This record gives sequence, structure tokens and C-alpha cells, in this order.
Amino acid sequence: MAELESKSTFTGQFTVQFTGQCPAPINSNERVQLAHGGGGKLTQQLIDNVFLPHFSNAALNQQGDGAVLDVGSQKLVFSTDSYVINPLFFPGGDIGSLSVSGTVNDLAMMGATPKYLSLGLIIEEGFLLSDLDTVVASIASEAKKAGVQVVTGDTKVVDKGHGDGLYINTAGIGVIEHNQVITPAQITPGDKIILSGDIGRHGMCILSQREGLSFNSELTSDVASVHQPVLALTSAGVVLHCMRDLTRGGLATSLLELAQTSALSFTLNSDVIPVSNEVQAIGELLGIDPLYVANEGRFVIIAPPEQEQSILDILATYDATQGAITIGEVVTPKPGEEGLVSIMNAYGVPRALSMLSGEQLPRIC
Amino acid sequence: MAELESKSTFTGQFTVQFTGQCPAPINSNERVQLAHGGGGKLTQQLIDNVFLPHFSNAALNQQGDGAVLDVGSQKLVFSTDSYVINPLFFPGGDIGSLSVSGTVNDLAMMGATPKYLSLGLIIEEGFLLSDLDTVVASIASEAKKAGVQVVTGDTKVVDKGHGDGLYINTAGIGVIEHNQVITPAQITPGDKIILSGDIGRHGMCILSQREGLSFNSELTSDVASVHQPVLALTSAGVVLHCMRDLTRGGLATSLLELAQTSALSFTLNSDVIPVSNEVQAIGELLGIDPLYVANEGRFVIIAPPEQEQSILDILATYDATQGAITIGEVVTPKPGEEGLVSIMNAYGVPRALSMLSGEQLPRIC
Repeated sequence: MAELESKSTFTGQFTVQFTGQCPAPINSNERVQLAHGGGGKLTQQLIDNVFLPHFSNAALNQQGDGAVLDVGSQKLVFSTDSYVINPLFFPGGDIGSLSVSGTVNDLAMMGATPKYLSLGLIIEEGFLLSDLDTVVASIASEAKKAGVQVVTGDTKVVDKGHGDGLYINTAGIGVIEHNQVITPAQITPGDKIILSGDIGRHGMCILSQREGLSFNSELTSDVASVHQPVLALTSAGVVLHCMRDLTRGGLATSLLELAQTSALSFTLNSDVIPVSNEVQAIGELLGIDPLYVANEGRFVIIAPPEQEQSILDILATYDATQGAITIGEVVTPKPGEEGLVSIMNAYGVPRALSMLSGEQLPRIC
Repeated sequence: MAELESKSTFTGQFTVQFTGQCPAPINSNERVQLAHGGGGKLTQQLIDNVFLPHFSNAALNQQGDGAVLDVGSQKLVFSTDSYVINPLFFPGGDIGSLSVSGTVNDLAMMGATPKYLSLGLIIEEGFLLSDLDTVVASIASEAKKAGVQVVTGDTKVVDKGHGDGLYINTAGIGVIEHNQVITPAQITPGDKIILSGDIGRHGMCILSQREGLSFNSELTSDVASVHQPVLALTSAGVVLHCMRDLTRGGLATSLLELAQTSALSFTLNSDVIPVSNEVQAIGELLGIDPLYVANEGRFVIIAPPEQEQSILDILATYDATQGAITIGEVVTPKPGEEGLVSIMNAYGVPRALSMLSGEQLPRIC
């Protein structure tokens, strides 16, 4: 179990595993920063120094967006996420739809069919009941679309000034209904990297909604549950090596994670990565690279080259993935260059992507 | 499916079911109050008017502290709770141990063996990393004691001023490893009501820690995972009709819930209900009835009278339940008096308990 495997928990989501590492000592005055929740290096430090040392006796072979559990003869996937997005309502969705599709997508990325959700609400005193009703309706609607049942829940109310309207936690249970093993360990040189659609819309949309940054824009979040196209692939017998949703840290962070975990390198073709004109424009205006911006309905598939066309054909038939396109491939790294992700511009000049130390945008999910 | 069954969700915890009821219209100016999270009548209104209408298509036969799911040939229980306790650290425990034992106990009350937990942390910017480490250590320690694995997690950080140090959500998966059905519907006239130990220590302990209410007291919370004694009962083949932990709203609220759900009446013997001298004294000083004060390691068992002695004998062998005692019994209600819980004083004079409309103490779990 290599140390690198814990890196796959980049979203601030951690799945427990034993690294055999001694934790770094904790400075008694050190405090949590926003970036500790941003999915970058500080999140990884929190996981390595605080979580993993205490949970080192738990299941060893977990990685990715959830834990695989053997229950009876079934393989279940169990995953959780808390949602603290600000603002709660945004073009294309709200914290309710996000809290369903986010966890549904985590299960789907593990190759599981999402089945059940739990719902934990932490509501700030004074929150409008009508807003709560809107969010709950949105949860119910997205759950129905995603074919999952919200089967258990809990409500807590905190004093005014000790929350931010509404925080939501969902935990999800999915069932793996095929025999494929879909993990970063399966990634092989020669594999194709397929992106499910244009990037950066969720993060840029949230940014444009924030106070003082109101663009007069038609931009909507890409938030969506994507388990249907994913399950269509596994049902059709398409061989997939790895999948990953492109949430906190965006495409660049996700691919860096996967390259590091698999100890391989990826080359990407900059020209084909789909970015909408609006995302491009906002990014240029604010100096934010869409490659690092969070998505909530986008993912990558890494699969053998002979599967590429089948994957693209199937993804093209679903709304959420109709813009899927091959953006690069996995290569054998030069010695010492494991984990490199390089992106070629139109002239074939490569640039190595690097991991952000903090986060560009706090509280985008 | 009677409307009353949704009442079993008294802790603010709701398990989805269809009541066939139309929701009350939501007033556009109405706001969430602290008492909406307190487990009393307002929590029930929130569940009836906001949650159930939207989730009415979900599993019908769920009630209690979690949802029973058929997965393959296994019966799983799935439950969630968020923890927003203030203060985070208190005599006898902290938010970490509470977030494990609270969810473990919910699973145990459904007769399930707790197996896996998810862990969602919402941390306020500026929280001391050393405090986080203490809480995570406490989670790991309690999980080890309870025999559950923390298999997946998530960390979010919210801006300073938009949290209260730390909120925790845990969701738990348990497996039902026996053939008993343990629900309020099994409660039968003649059943004995057995209490697992003295009441009111958790709530009174939290109260005594709150700013301005510092008693010079040795009082510690009763927070504990109680699945071991519970599973010892089912393993021994003891027949149990119903179990319920005595969290928000305390013994009185839990029993009123169960009496209403089963449409039977309960009579309790006031003299035998164990209350420590300290809890009694604080209660008298502040005018708070220990019957309504939250516990985090106490529960009731309702079981046929021929099982009473076996239950008491087994519970007596565990630290967490060594003070278990029979406190009353289930009776056939007079017509129109279904759901009554009456408590007899030393002179045999009965007093009917009533449901609190709000909560005595906010944020005790």
C-alpha cells in the first residue's frame, strides 16, 4: 500500500487506509484554514496528519470516492459528502440538487448503482421555511431522477449566527452490479482519457453569483447526476479502468491525483478540452484557469483504447455527457517523472500541470 | 400505515414513510426556530409539513431510528445523525465520542449490529488543529470500542463566523443478524418497560457546562455505545418487542412517542426511576424535570413479562446497563386514551405526562 494512494482523496473526501506513515506532529497553535477544505495540498496534510493516523486500523484496500464493503454476497459502496455551498441557490441548481447528485456521482465513479441516501440537515435559526421547502423539493426531485431513495434523515437547528442558512450532509449506499474493478490501480499506459463534457461551469457560475461578482451572464452550473451514462457503460460490458468526478480542484487536480496514484503520466491535448465561451471569458477576466475550476456533473473515464469508440458512442446518447470527448492518453513516465500531467498547446508545446496549494474558490460545494 | 407512525421520529430524526396526509401550507414568512430541531411538536411539524410530503414515494414500512434495507439476502439498517453539541468537550465525552455512540445506538435500537460509519466534518475556519486531533482521536477510540469501522469521510471548512467550531455528521450501516422484528408495532399490553440506568445525566451535564451555569459538580455525561448489551440479548434469544434510546426529549418524550405509535398506554412507577442526586438537585434548582432531559447512553426495552428477568440479568453484566430496572408496563388503554403515559407517585396517584411543545435545552447533541 503505497503512500500515494491516500492522495486519491483529493476532494477533502477521505477513505481510510493504512499508510504505515508516522504523522507529523501537530503544532498546538495551528488553526484550520479555509484551504484545509479546498481539496489541495492542505487538505491532504489534514488527511495525512490528523485522519489517517487515528483510523489506521480500518479497511486497507480502499481508495477513490467511497469505500467498497463486502456485505453478504454483495459489494456495496458507501460514500459521504457535506455541502456548504454559498449561495444556496444558483443558476442550474441549489444545495439540494447538489447534495443528491454529488453523492450519487461519488457512488457512480466507483462503478456502483446508487440506491439509498441518508440526509442530515443543519439549519440556522431564522432560515425561511419556504426556502427549506424549496431545497427539500429539489432533493426529492433529483433523487427521483437519480433513482435513489432518501430513506433516513436527521434535522438539527443551530443558533442564529452559528451557521450559514443550511448545511447538508448526504451519505449514499450503492451496489456494484458487475464484475469490473474500476480503480486508479487499473490505469495502464496507452489508455485513453475521455472527458464527459465542457469544464468549469459550476465553479464559474457560483463565482458569478457571489456578492460583488455579478456578471450579467447566462452561465448555469453543470450540476447533474451522471450515474445513468456510467451504468450504461458497465451494463454494455465496456471495460473501464478508472473514473473520477471533477469536483474541488477541477480537471487538473483530479488528473494529477490519478497520475500520482497510478505512478504513470498523462498527456493532454489542450485544444480539444471543451470550455464554453463564458467560462473562458470569466476565467480570463479574473485570472482563473478553468482547468482548476470545480465541476459537479463532469467526470473523466480512463479506459483501454479499443473501448474508446464504444464509450464515446454511449455517452453521446445522454444529455449530461453528450459533449464527451477524448482529451489525452496515459503514457509510461520517464524515470523520476511519475505522476506528471502535461498539456500540449496547438503548437505541440507541453506544459506540466501542478497541484494548487490552496483553493481558488472556497465553498463551491 | 397510520399517521401516528411518523411520530416515532421524535428526535428530529426522520425515517421516510407515506402518511397519506396533505401537508399544511407553508407560510412564506415563517422561519426555522431552535425548537424545530428539539425533537418536540415543532420538529414533528417540520417532518409532517416539509419532509414527508416530498419523500412520500419512499419505503413505506420504516420507522424508528433508521431504515431497514433489503440488500441481497441481508437486512441492513441505515441511520444518520448530525451533531451540533455545545460545548464540544464535556465531562464524560466530546462531540467525537458522541457522534460515534449516537449513531451506533440508533443502529442498536433497531436490533442491528453496527458495522460501518461515514464521517462528515464541517469545520469553522480558525478551529485549533490540536482540538480537531483530540476529537478525531476520540472518534477512533469510541469506534474501536464499538467495533465499527470509519470507512469513508469528508471534510469541509466554512468561513469564520459561519459555524461553531465543529459540526459532525455520521451515517451508519448495521446488519440485522437475527430473525426478530423489533418495532413499536410489536408492543403488547402486559409488556414490561425496562430502563437501562439512571436518567438525565447527559443533558444536565451539558447544561452545567454552559456559560454562566457552571455548577461545581462531578456530574458526567452518560454518553456510551450500548450495542453490546443489546446484542447480548438478541444473541441469547431473548424476545424484545421494542427498544428506543432516550435522546432529545428524554424518557418522557420517548415513551410518549412509543405509546402513541403503538396506540397503547404505559403506566410507570415514579419511585423506581433512577435519578442521581446531582441530576435531581440541578433539576430542582432550575425547574427542569429529569424525565424530559436528554440521555446519550440510556434506552428502554419493551418486552414480554416472561423475558423480564433474563433481560435484567444480562444487562446487569455490562457497565453501561448495570443499573437497568423495570419501571412500568404496557396496558390496554381506555377508549379515547390511547397514547397515554401515566406515572404513579409513592401514594399511587397517577399523573399523565405530556409532550413538550419546544425543547428545554438546545444543542445537547
